[in-house]
Amino acid sequence: MPANQQIVLDNRPQGEATESNFRLVTADTPPLADGQVLVRHHYLSLDPYMRGRMNDSKSYAQPQPLGEVMIGGTVGEVVESRHPKFAAGDKVVGMGGWQQYAVVDGSAPGALRKVDTTHVPLSHYLGAVGMPGVTAWYGLVKIIAPQKGDTVVVSAAAGAVGSAFGALAKARGCRVVGIAGGTDKCRYVVEELGFDACVDYKPHKDARDLSRALRDACPSGIDGYFENVGGMVLDAVLLRMNAFGRIAVCGMIAGYDGQPLPLANPALILVQRLKVEGFIVSEHMEVWPEALNELGGLVGSGKLRPRESVAQGLEAAPAAFLGLLKGRNFGKQLVKLV
Amino acid sequence: MPANQQIVLDNRPQGEATESNFRLVTADTPPLADGQVLVRHHYLSLDPYMRGRMNDSKSYAQPQPLGEVMIGGTVGEVVESRHPKFAAGDKVVGMGGWQQYAVVDGSAPGALRKVDTTHVPLSHYLGAVGMPGVTAWYGLVKIIAPQKGDTVVVSAAAGAVGSAFGALAKARGCRVVGIAGGTDKCRYVVEELGFDACVDYKPHKDARDLSRALRDACPSGIDGYFENVGGMVLDAVLLRMNAFGRIAVCGMIAGYDGQPLPLANPALILVQRLKVEGFIVSEHMEVWPEALNELGGLVGSGKLRPRESVAQGLEAAPAAFLGLLKGRNFGKQLVKLV
Repeated sequence: MPANQQIVLDNRPQGEATESNFRLVTADTPPLADGQVLVRHHYLSLDPYMRGRMNDSKSYAQPQPLGEVMIGGTVGEVVESRHPKFAAGDKVVGMGGWQQYAVVDGSAPGALRKVDTTHVPLSHYLGAVGMPGVTAWYGLVKIIAPQKGDTVVVSAAAGAVGSAFGALAKARGCRVVGIAGGTDKCRYVVEELGFDACVDYKPHKDARDLSRALRDACPSGIDGYFENVGGMVLDAVLLRMNAFGRIAVCGMIAGYDGQPLPLANPALILVQRLKVEGFIVSEHMEVWPEALNELGGLVGSGKLRPRESVAQGLEAAPAAFLGLLKGRNFGKQLVKLV
Repeated sequence: MPANQQIVLDNRPQGEATESNFRLVTADTPPLADGQVLVRHHYLSLDPYMRGRMNDSKSYAQPQPLGEVMIGGTVGEVVESRHPKFAAGDKVVGMGGWQQYAVVDGSAPGALRKVDTTHVPLSHYLGAVGMPGVTAWYGLVKIIAPQKGDTVVVSAAAGAVGSAFGALAKARGCRVVGIAGGTDKCRYVVEELGFDACVDYKPHKDARDLSRALRDACPSGIDGYFENVGGMVLDAVLLRMNAFGRIAVCGMIAGYDGQPLPLANPALILVQRLKVEGFIVSEHMEVWPEALNELGGLVGSGKLRPRESVAQGLEAAPAAFLGLLKGRNFGKQLVKLV
């Protein structure tokens, strides 16, 4: 069996995460038992939620245990199978973690899923046609539930979730406005992803200043907002929400390092009769088939052409992950392992 | 026609409202035109929302115009009628404002409604069987939507909305916990209103301290919260919300004077997958008949025996209103005019 490079969580961040929180180790790959499948990972997914798992605090998920392989979505190819549903050569998506190989129980619910790469590149099953895409779908369809003509806004618009959100909202006849960091990303969001407008948050010194830029991009106000970042951006958007607006809270990346991240004016929830709802897509597995079907169609037909940032080799994963947390990625952040 | 004492908004508060913001005037009562009804007010309702109307700022309602009679709910008796549906002697509820008499268009939708005082005292149509009761009903039934056995919490529990909330939630098999200011109010909430527990917020210096007291009162956490006050109380409750909890935002009285009232940790909305929804009961007239029917039944059967704080005479209204904003009232705050 092949040697298996792995990245484990060595120690927990004090404030900002650093590369020294991680450790590269090499393990043996154990022989397969009945029902198990050996997968060689082609791509590892890096996602903001992983930062939350690195903390040892109350959250919706168990903390990442110290000394164990970092959790993470993976796509790859079956190398060897002792499970009747999988055969060598099958392309699969799973939660194999930050390592080159994984031994997976082929019968565990949701552990391993065969995918078709005829129309959708394998890596996209970690992005637009995977967890980030379904995340965008759930927030848009189940929480924001837009009417045709509504103005909807998404932060981190150039990212994996944001780009899928844009395509899904355009397909529903919405005006779609992104918020992103930097002119390059904003140009990409409008020119390549097809958003109606994109606001660069970086030149704005405070929420009131940013909200003025949002007013220009959203002349009819904001009916729905998909929140990935929190902090100043959320404060600015709240100032532009229309009555009966809906806010899907998916992430608050600005607060993942543990600093206080207050909401300046929660009274706007009352004044504008808003609905603000937090969600985690893995708790809504019932929507995945419908969402993946729509997302696969958008990618297959070229209506959603998400960009990917690809780091090379497992040892590059920590730096790429830290860059993701700072918004240095452009589109879906992956690590290529093969 | 009788002379009519009125209280008008003379000038807007700078920060805290004061008696000098109001002015007592005397007006003539004009002769009735066809379709009009002259009502003599027996009771005037004082409610926290009126403070919001005194500001000249963006809100869900138009600001109270300067120099005009303060808005407000009223109950009284028809003195004279030129409308076929009303006759002298009818008991009616309306929005007559801070004055002794009102001339009302009997056909305007929602302007005047005849009420039956056989089983429900007239004044209760301004409280438990009126707008505050329906407010509690909407937040509990339509937003919190509790299951039997859920723990639900309401702030300003001794007030008109809080007391109705308690009876409605007990009728649904919930554990009901109040938050109120002072040991007298808390004793009343438990002993007379039948709540399972009540937490006095006054001895607690910060949200974390208050949240510890809430933990003792809510050993299974909080599934639903009805928010009347905002500020430290909301921060404390958020720390105890269970996953998938629902928060109905009805009021944020702590912020009505314009001071910043941030929410310390909005990330809890995500971590606990909460739904936070603001509402205004007057925008949901479709639920009023069902809600009033249930509330009338609870009062008629003695299951809801709300207390009233009654100020005497129109000239006492401003001081009573300012006391309400500081929580000096005990139950529904009324002004008796007859």
